[in-house]
Amino acid sequence: MTRHYNFCAGPAALPTMVLERAGNELVDYQGRGLSVMEMSHRSDEFISIAEQAEADFRQLLGVPDNYKVLFLQGGASMQFAMLPMNLLGQGGSANFIQTGIWGKKALSEAQRLGFDCHVSGSSEANGHSAVPAHETLDISRDAAYLHYTSNETIGGLEFDYTPQVQRTDGSDVPLVCDMSSNILSGPINVNDFGVIYAGAQKNIGPAGLTLVMVRDDLLGRAQPGIPSLFDYQLLADAGSMVNTPPTYAWYLAGLVFQWLKDDIGGLDAMNALNQRKADKLYAAIDGSDFYSNPIAQHNRSRMNVPFVLADATLDKAFLQEADAAGLLNLKGHRSVGGMRASLYNAVPEQAVDALIAFMADFEQRRG
Amino acid sequence: MTRHYNFCAGPAALPTMVLERAGNELVDYQGRGLSVMEMSHRSDEFISIAEQAEADFRQLLGVPDNYKVLFLQGGASMQFAMLPMNLLGQGGSANFIQTGIWGKKALSEAQRLGFDCHVSGSSEANGHSAVPAHETLDISRDAAYLHYTSNETIGGLEFDYTPQVQRTDGSDVPLVCDMSSNILSGPINVNDFGVIYAGAQKNIGPAGLTLVMVRDDLLGRAQPGIPSLFDYQLLADAGSMVNTPPTYAWYLAGLVFQWLKDDIGGLDAMNALNQRKADKLYAAIDGSDFYSNPIAQHNRSRMNVPFVLADATLDKAFLQEADAAGLLNLKGHRSVGGMRASLYNAVPEQAVDALIAFMADFEQRRG
Repeated sequence: MTRHYNFCAGPAALPTMVLERAGNELVDYQGRGLSVMEMSHRSDEFISIAEQAEADFRQLLGVPDNYKVLFLQGGASMQFAMLPMNLLGQGGSANFIQTGIWGKKALSEAQRLGFDCHVSGSSEANGHSAVPAHETLDISRDAAYLHYTSNETIGGLEFDYTPQVQRTDGSDVPLVCDMSSNILSGPINVNDFGVIYAGAQKNIGPAGLTLVMVRDDLLGRAQPGIPSLFDYQLLADAGSMVNTPPTYAWYLAGLVFQWLKDDIGGLDAMNALNQRKADKLYAAIDGSDFYSNPIAQHNRSRMNVPFVLADATLDKAFLQEADAAGLLNLKGHRSVGGMRASLYNAVPEQAVDALIAFMADFEQRRG
Repeated sequence: MTRHYNFCAGPAALPTMVLERAGNELVDYQGRGLSVMEMSHRSDEFISIAEQAEADFRQLLGVPDNYKVLFLQGGASMQFAMLPMNLLGQGGSANFIQTGIWGKKALSEAQRLGFDCHVSGSSEANGHSAVPAHETLDISRDAAYLHYTSNETIGGLEFDYTPQVQRTDGSDVPLVCDMSSNILSGPINVNDFGVIYAGAQKNIGPAGLTLVMVRDDLLGRAQPGIPSLFDYQLLADAGSMVNTPPTYAWYLAGLVFQWLKDDIGGLDAMNALNQRKADKLYAAIDGSDFYSNPIAQHNRSRMNVPFVLADATLDKAFLQEADAAGLLNLKGHRSVGGMRASLYNAVPEQAVDALIAFMADFEQRRG
């Protein structure tokens, strides 16, 4: 069995321990004579798996009782549509902070659906290299919510603060956050948010599962006549089982949560490890004239580290040699080029060490 | 390793060979050093897996070139909403044949969304024990399509004909079929249909994947302003990758298609095997005064065989003893009670033989 170091931005690396356990019990789950993926979603066995996964997730993030945790399909992109359809059912406008491609997609989808949208802040003027300062955010008077992307996977830009803003009439604006690429990377205060959502395929599990946390007071506000599977209230009432959920992805997410709890030691430990991984890679980049990263120091993503070579004609050689050395998927997103190393939870520190060593060696030989 | 016989209605049994192969390569796919679920959906490796799966599916069912095959999320229930939003964008009404719970859900969802709906035929009067006769179907003049459910998973009712109907003005009505529970159970003529769709979790793969075949002339008719992920045209243009698809479920579906081709020998062979399995179970039921099935002979489902005991107070004992004998998930749907044996493709003939032997033994001891 070979395990290379996988820096893919998503679907991304999963903990080897989790994959080994899943592989061992794929054909026969704990002597029950069937696979988890062959179980009825309403069977006692699967309900037990599902409830344990939710309990572990709640414990890891400290999710309060007045939040529902939904296990859905469709990815974050489906939430781009579901959010305004649920939260603007009683009118008002959706406010957005734009810090990159994913935030822009969230805005575009709400606009496509005909909702009233307002851009409260944007880093477009600085090429998405620094998050707008907190005090510059401009919230519309009728804001139903403020949406932002806590980590932009493609640009490698991460918020260093949690926006907390009021409408011009002084009332609180529910905060809605796309945490697809940095959820579970460290502790957060869930109480700061109205809705948190994340596609699973970075820090949670395989693609095809989306986690959504919704504060109870934001349920039951959907537009009438939207698809049943879009209505947070219906989904919450049915325990995410309005129809058959992605059971195997749910089970795998549960294994990842167990790994975070038992093997990593929780989100404080995960946070420290992630910070160490990112710090050493950025230090290697900054300590070289050959590699560079354009993001402001305080907004550099701990999860996704884009970098470019001083000589772009060497990109292909860099990627080929890295791949041959077992350092996989370092190519930057097709929209920006260059390189990107994604350092999600499941990417071990040894992978970062190996990457740094490779980069130094490549620079020495080819720089 | 234990493998019991699993008669679950869905998520359902998968071929043991498929699970063994998936288990063997879960941690390391063919020496590449990563799992399929850790691959970028845009990587050469995954694209190759995805394209092979589609090619095998097309070959198995004989899907003509003027049909797109989409690999989506959300289950058949999501299609209940997507279908009218795509096919009624240029007006007209949705026509439905009602033969059970799933067909009713499809109708209810279209009504919920505010579309003009017409019931073209229903078996409600006979308790969904026989499909309406072909010549009694009543299609509205402005029908944009006719929807039916070729196999009702809960009731155990299967169409023995393919509806082919014209509007009162003589033009053809596109046929839309929910084949979730009998797709790939035998050959069909795809050319008879405008849209065929199926949740994966019966005859295709794990829950969380939905296959949709759309004839080209039905693309590009969507209502404006629907969610991007609902628009068949956008999904087709992006090769089902408007966003990250459920990659691991797609891969597993591909393994099932390979198994159908290489190990079963294609859909004619599968059909013969399924017919034999169903025939012998119905013969055992009919040959007994203790067990009974209410469905008209010509509409009995080959996939889902509901039956009741003459003495319902023995239901619990039947299920407990069956489970102890390694015959799993024989409980009928919560809405109808009794028993149900689902005999999908992956349920081997030996499982049916074992069930029949158990039923005879139980009757002798307790009947």
